[in-house]
Amino acid sequence: MRPRISLLATGGTIASLDSPDGLAPAIPAKDILAMSLALLVDANVCAQDVFTLDSSNIQPEEWQELARAVRRAAKNSDGIVITHGTDTMAYTASALSFMLLGLDKPVVLTGSQLPLTHPLSDASNNLAQAFAVARQAPPGVYIAFHHKVIYGTRAVKMRTLGFDAFDSINAPAVGFFDADGLHLSRAQAPVVQVPHSAPPEQLDARVFLLKLVPGTDPSIFQHIVDNGYRGLVLEAFGLGGLHYIRRNLLESLALVADKGVLTLVTTQCLYEKADFSVYEVGRNILGNNVYGAHDMTSEAALTKLMWVLGDPARRPLLTQCLCHEMGCA
Amino acid sequence: MRPRISLLATGGTIASLDSPDGLAPAIPAKDILAMSLALLVDANVCAQDVFTLDSSNIQPEEWQELARAVRRAAKNSDGIVITHGTDTMAYTASALSFMLLGLDKPVVLTGSQLPLTHPLSDASNNLAQAFAVARQAPPGVYIAFHHKVIYGTRAVKMRTLGFDAFDSINAPAVGFFDADGLHLSRAQAPVVQVPHSAPPEQLDARVFLLKLVPGTDPSIFQHIVDNGYRGLVLEAFGLGGLHYIRRNLLESLALVADKGVLTLVTTQCLYEKADFSVYEVGRNILGNNVYGAHDMTSEAALTKLMWVLGDPARRPLLTQCLCHEMGCA
Repeated sequence: MRPRISLLATGGTIASLDSPDGLAPAIPAKDILAMSLALLVDANVCAQDVFTLDSSNIQPEEWQELARAVRRAAKNSDGIVITHGTDTMAYTASALSFMLLGLDKPVVLTGSQLPLTHPLSDASNNLAQAFAVARQAPPGVYIAFHHKVIYGTRAVKMRTLGFDAFDSINAPAVGFFDADGLHLSRAQAPVVQVPHSAPPEQLDARVFLLKLVPGTDPSIFQHIVDNGYRGLVLEAFGLGGLHYIRRNLLESLALVADKGVLTLVTTQCLYEKADFSVYEVGRNILGNNVYGAHDMTSEAALTKLMWVLGDPARRPLLTQCLCHEMGCA
Repeated sequence: MRPRISLLATGGTIASLDSPDGLAPAIPAKDILAMSLALLVDANVCAQDVFTLDSSNIQPEEWQELARAVRRAAKNSDGIVITHGTDTMAYTASALSFMLLGLDKPVVLTGSQLPLTHPLSDASNNLAQAFAVARQAPPGVYIAFHHKVIYGTRAVKMRTLGFDAFDSINAPAVGFFDADGLHLSRAQAPVVQVPHSAPPEQLDARVFLLKLVPGTDPSIFQHIVDNGYRGLVLEAFGLGGLHYIRRNLLESLALVADKGVLTLVTTQCLYEKADFSVYEVGRNILGNNVYGAHDMTSEAALTKLMWVLGDPARRPLLTQCLCHEMGCA
């Protein structure tokens, strides 16, 4: 039997047409499919529009709607392809990775840097490759883009214009395409028992991301406490450095931790791990609501924290490796 | 006559020794020099300690102190080498690039990922290469690290552990080392007349850097206005996207602009330019205190904004290319 693939469209450049206000997402899922006839050869495809948004407008509420749409579609499909704008695709892919833990189908996000209708578009290639991944990959959330397959939790958008828009950070790409087809490595994620006292897609979006700069004023930490944030991703310097002369951010971090704000300390360096424990001052704070993000991307740290905060029963999972988001010891 | 080089030490891993609290900067400039005897062969070196800090603690106040020390040292030197921790070296190098505009000597920052006293240290190589750049390069601010020479305004710390810690972003490295020595390209920066109604190193550190995430709450913009910030670097999505459904960040951006906060919109993608003008909504805001950062790094955008805000006479320079910080048309 031919595999059944669901195509869920969400807007993005791939679905955009010229409008008086510039490019705007407009092409519905069924037309995306019709414009890429090659996709129909090997699979029975069911096309559906979930929403039609520039991905800069896709926020945690849309992630939840999309996760529910994926679960519904998965009942009658062998794999799911999601078309999505590139700007926040890495965030969505990472969020879905946590929200869909345990789903037994592959979910593959793709999009393009130029609209499907542009003569130089990368859309057809990316779509064809996403469908191939949806047919062949083990369960999990992936981005397929420009001949690469990347775990949803490892993807970062690196380029604003180049077709090779995404890289896999701190882990090799899980697969690639060449003239011999799709080459997939099949490292399995550990099997994690996810407690379900809340719906699996429940999130708490009250997480602030703070990228430090030299001279960052401690008042931002008071803002975080006063405005009801429950989580903080702190992009520190190098392995996890923050300043404490004149402007004492260590004291500020202890303050938000005392107020119950769950914090992941990550690094603003793109590559390699953060290790807050190498600093004496860091070691003293660790554990009391403050955890090192190890080699997670900021996108993964943010979405994992939102997801963990969505259900108190998930709290022990914060420091566990769930879906390739960090190197497992 | 042998060239005269000033070595200004500021602390950092390169100068660190083991202490009960972990690694801490402790080796003074004269001992850094004595431990790297090769440096003495070709130049008359004058060594001086400016301060002794982990670079996570180096903030705009230290940049100003360092800029003044460089100007003093430059009177009796042909070139200046600065040893500095790696964590914030890219910020310091970019800040000095603006503060030292017009200085007629090369200024070269270096450091190391392992202390000078570690058997596997990269310190001696980096020091030797920095001295070579200080002897041979045209005026300007550079980072010399792991066989590469990078303009101070183009450097980003990419790796928390790897020796190849810095990359030149959106411009090729200005030079490299191999067994044939130093290879330098000699693209000249445009000659800029810097108005001097304030001291050249005067900065205004009241600049906030906001890296957007899906769901960023607009209340952070009110915090920026209420706390007296005069500048904002906005790391948007892709070419310059921000969300305006439910949480209207376009309205928030217009609000801070109306309150006189000078804003540079950059991208959270590492590579390639931001172009806020591609969005109709973006176009309407541009010009009224809101400017695209083009292909500047966030480090360059932040330090340029602090420097421009340090003297009202510098305001017309914000959108000009001053010291290789952005591609010039």
